[in-house]
Amino acid sequence: MSQAVQSAAVQNGIGHDLHRFIDTLYPICRSITGDGLRETLRIIRTHIPLSLNEVPTGTRVFDWTVPNEWNIRDAYVKNSRGERVIDFQTSNLHVVNYSVPVRRRMRLADLKPHLFALPDRPDWIPYRTSYYQESWGFCVAQRQLELLPDEEYEVVIDSTLQPGHLTYGEYFLPGDLPDEIVVSTHCCHPSLCNDNLTGIAIATFLGRFLSAQSHRYSYRFLFIPGTIGAIAWLALNQEKASRIRHGLVLTGLGDSGKLCYKRSRQGNAEIDRAAAHVLQSGFYEHQLMDFSPYGYDERQFCSPGINLAFGRLSRTPHGTFPEYHTSADNLDFVHPEKLSESFDACVRILGLVERNETFLSLNQKCEPQLGKRGLYGTIGGAAGARDRELAMLWVLNFSDGAHSLLDIAERSKMSFDCIRSAAEALRASGLLRECLELTSDMRVASLERTTS
Amino acid sequence: MSQAVQSAAVQNGIGHDLHRFIDTLYPICRSITGDGLRETLRIIRTHIPLSLNEVPTGTRVFDWTVPNEWNIRDAYVKNSRGERVIDFQTSNLHVVNYSVPVRRRMRLADLKPHLFALPDRPDWIPYRTSYYQESWGFCVAQRQLELLPDEEYEVVIDSTLQPGHLTYGEYFLPGDLPDEIVVSTHCCHPSLCNDNLTGIAIATFLGRFLSAQSHRYSYRFLFIPGTIGAIAWLALNQEKASRIRHGLVLTGLGDSGKLCYKRSRQGNAEIDRAAAHVLQSGFYEHQLMDFSPYGYDERQFCSPGINLAFGRLSRTPHGTFPEYHTSADNLDFVHPEKLSESFDACVRILGLVERNETFLSLNQKCEPQLGKRGLYGTIGGAAGARDRELAMLWVLNFSDGAHSLLDIAERSKMSFDCIRSAAEALRASGLLRECLELTSDMRVASLERTTS
Amino acid sequence: MSQAVQSAAVQNGIGHDLHRFIDTLYPICRSITGDGLRETLRIIRTHIPLSLNEVPTGTRVFDWTVPNEWNIRDAYVKNSRGERVIDFQTSNLHVVNYSVPVRRRMRLADLKPHLFALPDRPDWIPYRTSYYQESWGFCVAQRQLELLPDEEYEVVIDSTLQPGHLTYGEYFLPGDLPDEIVVSTHCCHPSLCNDNLTGIAIATFLGRFLSAQSHRYSYRFLFIPGTIGAIAWLALNQEKASRIRHGLVLTGLGDSGKLCYKRSRQGNAEIDRAAAHVLQSGFYEHQLMDFSPYGYDERQFCSPGINLAFGRLSRTPHGTFPEYHTSADNLDFVHPEKLSESFDACVRILGLVERNETFLSLNQKCEPQLGKRGLYGTIGGAAGARDRELAMLWVLNFSDGAHSLLDIAERSKMSFDCIRSAAEALRASGLLRECLELTSDMRVASLERTTS
Repeated sequence: MSQAVQSAAVQNGIGHDLHRFIDTLYPICRSITGDGLRETLRIIRTHIPLSLNEVPTGTRVFDWTVPNEWNIRDAYVKNSRGERVIDFQTSNLHVVNYSVPVRRRMRLADLKPHLFALPDRPDWIPYRTSYYQESWGFCVAQRQLELLPDEEYEVVIDSTLQPGHLTYGEYFLPGDLPDEIVVSTHCCHPSLCNDNLTGIAIATFLGRFLSAQSHRYSYRFLFIPGTIGAIAWLALNQEKASRIRHGLVLTGLGDSGKLCYKRSRQGNAEIDRAAAHVLQSGFYEHQLMDFSPYGYDERQFCSPGINLAFGRLSRTPHGTFPEYHTSADNLDFVHPEKLSESFDACVRILGLVERNETFLSLNQKCEPQLGKRGLYGTIGGAAGARDRELAMLWVLNFSDGAHSLLDIAERSKMSFDCIRSAAEALRASGLLRECLELTSDMRVASLERTTS
Repeated sequence: MSQAVQSAAVQNGIGHDLHRFIDTLYPICRSITGDGLRETLRIIRTHIPLSLNEVPTGTRVFDWTVPNEWNIRDAYVKNSRGERVIDFQTSNLHVVNYSVPVRRRMRLADLKPHLFALPDRPDWIPYRTSYYQESWGFCVAQRQLELLPDEEYEVVIDSTLQPGHLTYGEYFLPGDLPDEIVVSTHCCHPSLCNDNLTGIAIATFLGRFLSAQSHRYSYRFLFIPGTIGAIAWLALNQEKASRIRHGLVLTGLGDSGKLCYKRSRQGNAEIDRAAAHVLQSGFYEHQLMDFSPYGYDERQFCSPGINLAFGRLSRTPHGTFPEYHTSADNLDFVHPEKLSESFDACVRILGLVERNETFLSLNQKCEPQLGKRGLYGTIGGAAGARDRELAMLWVLNFSDGAHSLLDIAERSKMSFDCIRSAAEALRASGLLRECLELTSDMRVASLERTTS
Repeated sequence: MSQAVQSAAVQNGIGHDLHRFIDTLYPICRSITGDGLRETLRIIRTHIPLSLNEVPTGTRVFDWTVPNEWNIRDAYVKNSRGERVIDFQTSNLHVVNYSVPVRRRMRLADLKPHLFALPDRPDWIPYRTSYYQESWGFCVAQRQLELLPDEEYEVVIDSTLQPGHLTYGEYFLPGDLPDEIVVSTHCCHPSLCNDNLTGIAIATFLGRFLSAQSHRYSYRFLFIPGTIGAIAWLALNQEKASRIRHGLVLTGLGDSGKLCYKRSRQGNAEIDRAAAHVLQSGFYEHQLMDFSPYGYDERQFCSPGINLAFGRLSRTPHGTFPEYHTSADNLDFVHPEKLSESFDACVRILGLVERNETFLSLNQKCEPQLGKRGLYGTIGGAAGARDRELAMLWVLNFSDGAHSLLDIAERSKMSFDCIRSAAEALRASGLLRECLELTSDMRVASLERTTS
């Protein structure tokens, strides 16, 4: 997967394709179970060959139990004139997600405890859920709430909450190695764009993009309901988890804020250093955050008994922008050029991990003679040529088996790409060979490649 | 020992009690041996059940030998009219501590080499000692010295210096564990308040305070003459020293400067980190100093072959304020509110060490479901509630057996108290248990508690 | 080797002696082989008993092969009137070093590809080489180049390039220990002063200086052609290399820039810390640089399979001053007072390594009683005396076998000299003994000294 290939995708207006895909998924009423989730996964399947998996209600997954499946057809509050003053058909955020069925008439005073609004943001509908406590409610704009006269209302939530399944999607893309990189995104939020749909869209397009490239690692893309989905997947796939080398949780990738990478619990894993190197390359406004056990599914992937090297890429961190978990996280809140930039950063981070090999210089004692191999430029070469020579000296000096190319890039303060291309030139001249001191799984795979 | 209990003591005007106790001890002529020291220890015994220990003159203690015992009844210099122009009865600082007996008449010129004053501080009497070299002298204010006419004086020091004992006091307060925290203070200075009496007073009141609390650790309070006392105690109590986990040298705790914690030789011991955490909590003006082999008895406790985790708490470091070792280090130099604050810091530091346990989350793989246990707040909870939830997530994620609560507080940048109370809530819900990976001594003790 | 002795050399106008020596060597046309190099080494031999070593052309040294030997008698370009318009006799920089023999008539257009100049520095002659590619050329000032009319020229390079030898000089100065400190300098550049002759001069005078001192370490001074000389020496002297404990590459020590120490590849070797301590002592304007695999022969000494603790001392780093590798790097570019300061820094750095022993306090448990040994000053001692007492406390507290005197100096933030002299006083009083936990070679040597 070369840099040239990477940028091609970005140049071809991928930001608009991503936004269009988000637009398609926007109206669907997703939840942590149910047909909205299934429909979403089926649409993703039109882009990548996703497998859909169903986990039955009642399945024990570590400390949790898969809940009843929730489906909803309609919901409204009608006033005395029979007008729908709150209507699920205009926005699926109007219903508290996982509301039990309701069909009754009640005065405003009795209804009010079931109505949620944001006094500080009087035009926005909040997003609320009640997955694990049987309850019901409506979410409305504060202005709308204030206009409701004190009269009798007809309150209907035409939902079902009964044994069924939790659905998740998985796309496995085999590579040269059995070792895996996992890209995970949650897909349980209804009409919310940045939180949920941007991750889904970028993960989908990354899958399609990578399937057209050669790659060392195997990739696994997980489209899962937040928290319970990650827990279910980990509980039911422990043998797969043992092959995961690097992971990335994607979400919140379309807003106008700068890119933000949150480090794994390990803190200095290869994915953490790769992300830092890419973000610090000068192309991106960015911030780096240390791990904290608050956030998205990195909470589960980085729980102490799992402790995988999962980082999270987003833009403005969740909860720190006012539109978070409201109707204002809509199609206007996410921007094609930001989606494009986020996609580009993902490709570069994964590309760096892909190409971060460890080589062994075949001349450990003193420098090899670069000149006789045509690797040392003529006098007065351009700055680019001098950088290339310097990069070769760094690669030769630190390719002692203990330093990966990223180690060398960090130490030399040169770009990974410059270091990588120096390594390739040196390997082509027979001065460097791949270092096979890998994990046992990786070693087996490498040997198979070598002998076949 | 809870925070609520701690602050109670401070609120009840403990600063004034401490100052009153210092006032009682102030007139006594202490030294590294002798009756002034014994009297001081007997007064301390009216507050805590101190044992008094006597080490005979001539006892070898590592490289040192316990010196002769020094006692003094009176001392003066009388002029030709029989007036006491220098009088031990008005200040015990007037005599060089450990002066040999003298009774003779002499001219001013012969007397002068035995007179010590501070030209820069003409109103203050300096404090001088000559423990290990037989000598005698008087300390006077420079102004007083300048007024002495050249005539014959009667010079009397009615002291004895002969075989006897070195006395020290020890108060042992057993806890749940045989592992000890030692609080040590020197008590060999005559009428000096900040240097000596503040440490004595606070150690005494700490002992009384802790005896009324439950506590995991055993505590040992040492009231010892400086240097020789610490060396004697360590030489004669090597088996006790092996049980010391944490130590604190107290001195200089009443002046108006900010609190100063000096780290142990180990540099990052638990007591060091606990003191830093407490002082950095925002309640105290403070400074942190690295270990140096210059100071009080931490020099001995932190000598290379002992190397215990002893820090030192004081306010302005000794030697850096002009009143140090002069008559100006008097009752006005130490302030009730500063004594109170110092006491409070001690209680908080020891309280943190007491409560710094290591727990094991019983759900290492993925988060436990907090909601079903009533630990996850309702929507829109107050900031305090959100902090509590965040603290629970930190405790769960890092209670892997390798991180103490203080480790977690440091990493999360949350207060220890917040982390501790989250841990208690989680333990009460059965999500956490104490981690018994302790020192072998501690393990035995813990098992005994568990099985009894 | 005491500090007093060190500064004596500096005070005696060594800067002028060094400059005079550079002046002697300046006219010689050196190269990586040949008689100019030999003549240079023979002149050095008038100061120190250098052995000259000859490595035959064709000898394989790691990845390299010793090239043909190059010698030159004369070279010129004559115009149509028979005037030498470019003349090797006026500056040996006029000929591209290692030019093959030429004797022909040619038009300016054909000559031009063989002429090198610096358009930005029109008055300076550049320095060019072509060691490993058979070629020829002349270097001229841009102004001179522009004046050449288009006519026929007689072009003569009266050189030979044929099998012979590569010559290097070596001076071994045995010490108490078989462990070695190596001082290496390149001596392959023709009339260039800062780059080449300053290193040669200072290494020569250091050798003479050290031969008059007692020293623990053995010293080896290497005067070698750059790159190929270092590689040849390492390839042919692997058993000697195993005894090298510290190394210093010297070059570029006479310009007016500040001193610059470049750390070894190990990064925190004793020589690195010694150099930092000396340069940070307050006497020198200086900078410290991390290792990079670009520079002088530290590239070979610090190649991964050699990885010796070689630092480099210079002033302005090569390549970052415009006079570098031009005729402007001449006798005016290097200054006696800068040479003197560089020499002084070398002496201090080596002196620190010499005296950086590890001692063991014979009183590990509690402090020894300094007073009874006359080591504790009387009251009111001068600041110097207090520093001395403080230094003794530091040495006693950290002489636990794990800390060298430099470790203690770094930790105490006191000068090495102060710490060293405290250690000597303590050793003289029987409180400290040398710690024999050294490398196996060093241990044997130490034992031999002890038993003989």
